[in-house]
Amino acid sequence: MSRIVYVNGDYVPEEEAKISIFDRGFLFADGVYEVTSVLDGKLIDFDGHAKRLERSLNELDMAAPVTMEELLAIHRELMAQNDLTEGMIYLQVTRGSDGDRDFPYPDASKVPSSLVLFTQSKKIADSPAAKVGMKVISVEDIRWGRRDIKTVQLLYPCMGKMAAKAAGCDDAWMVEDGTVTEGTSNNAYIVKDGTIITRHLSNDILHGITRRAVLAFAREAQMQVEERAFTIEEAQAADEAFVTSASTFVMPVVEIDGAQLGDGTPGPVAKRLREIYLAESLKAAL
Amino acid sequence: MSRIVYVNGDYVPEEEAKISIFDRGFLFADGVYEVTSVLDGKLIDFDGHAKRLERSLNELDMAAPVTMEELLAIHRELMAQNDLTEGMIYLQVTRGSDGDRDFPYPDASKVPSSLVLFTQSKKIADSPAAKVGMKVISVEDIRWGRRDIKTVQLLYPCMGKMAAKAAGCDDAWMVEDGTVTEGTSNNAYIVKDGTIITRHLSNDILHGITRRAVLAFAREAQMQVEERAFTIEEAQAADEAFVTSASTFVMPVVEIDGAQLGDGTPGPVAKRLREIYLAESLKAAL
Repeated sequence: MSRIVYVNGDYVPEEEAKISIFDRGFLFADGVYEVTSVLDGKLIDFDGHAKRLERSLNELDMAAPVTMEELLAIHRELMAQNDLTEGMIYLQVTRGSDGDRDFPYPDASKVPSSLVLFTQSKKIADSPAAKVGMKVISVEDIRWGRRDIKTVQLLYPCMGKMAAKAAGCDDAWMVEDGTVTEGTSNNAYIVKDGTIITRHLSNDILHGITRRAVLAFAREAQMQVEERAFTIEEAQAADEAFVTSASTFVMPVVEIDGAQLGDGTPGPVAKRLREIYLAESLKAAL
Repeated sequence: MSRIVYVNGDYVPEEEAKISIFDRGFLFADGVYEVTSVLDGKLIDFDGHAKRLERSLNELDMAAPVTMEELLAIHRELMAQNDLTEGMIYLQVTRGSDGDRDFPYPDASKVPSSLVLFTQSKKIADSPAAKVGMKVISVEDIRWGRRDIKTVQLLYPCMGKMAAKAAGCDDAWMVEDGTVTEGTSNNAYIVKDGTIITRHLSNDILHGITRRAVLAFAREAQMQVEERAFTIEEAQAADEAFVTSASTFVMPVVEIDGAQLGDGTPGPVAKRLREIYLAESLKAAL
């Protein structure tokens, strides 16, 4: 059975899911997105993703295509139509199409935003990768300056993943002015002497929904947290490292630019945070 | 009559011109483009655009969807089907769709690149804007670091155009580390004491096809050319200024951040270069 996806009001088989070539998402990367995880048939932190979507739209003066209540209903309808109990739901809003190509934004009262959603069925809680941990390389961070807005300008993260694959690794950490900003599609953390260190929020990184939740859980569990920039050298000398994202939760990192961390297996802090995050998120899931 | 556009091998009415929502151009801005001008029913510097397209594809390890000869034939077929004698032809190549969303590139032997082209009919030679000149503002250049690759990651240029419009101006010049990189969709020039000054080529700017031609014509006409970075202050104190692009040719700039240049009308060097460019390009047009 083919997947049913949502395109501008319609639920259609994925093969028929198409968008105008004049859509500004296609021509100008004039669009934003969110990925919400599904566990046990429930949405993890939907409110967090909905709020960040609203913020991304506001930052770009882009109109919301539906209300956040309608968006929740679409998520649920897609889960139902696709029998999705575990995996992700991807959503993308673009500034739509006025039928031609011109840089200035079209009048939002005449040209509605486009909305696309689709499900991705995947085992994400019981992840084999989380048991062995990831190897990362570092690459220079040459992305644009508003990484706090979750736009679809994702070519460089794709290039980073390809560079990692070419090096026999799983992902890349991006480095700007000597310090790590974040992973290609996740926030980056190190742990040293029991303290969790992750870059402070700014326009330089995505304000991860999972990041916020994990840091809150860590503080509730009386763990020390420092929000500051760190170097690759500091990371290589750390006791352990990990990343967080909506689709990987807490994912241990065991090697950075060829340097093994600890004994090369996932560290206790990452493992414990993953357990806490999964348990607590599921409790609060919608 | 509706415009006929090209989408992956088919010539279709523009209303039916659609692409999969899983196309990487839509999801990741994983695509490149070119715009070739048409004058008197002929293509201006098609070879230059075809070569730059090949370079963009190579830089991104993206497969060419058709040969450059086939691409030329598609351009001509679109001109014929749409009776296009003056305007532009837009082309976009993306890394296609493997039917789902994942950052790493799909296997190019299994997933062909997507190719989309469409015409835009427009009076570009006898441009009213060229007679009065443009007003520009400066904005910080926060784009990614590979502006030499002509990708569809154009959200920030769109934002720049909107900022210019909001300020009652026509375009924005982008400034990085104190010097002008380029306009939102054109290369930037100033003229001081008869010398044409424009930023040197690097990954910081697009290697304009029109830029290359205009500089060659200027040198042939014994004009002095300096390829180096300049500041907004230097530009405001210049005798004149202009921009070049495939769709605007040579377009005078008469005001920069509120400072009028000269008497506030297009300068003689810009006017002369525009005339030379139009005449010479047309001679060499295909």
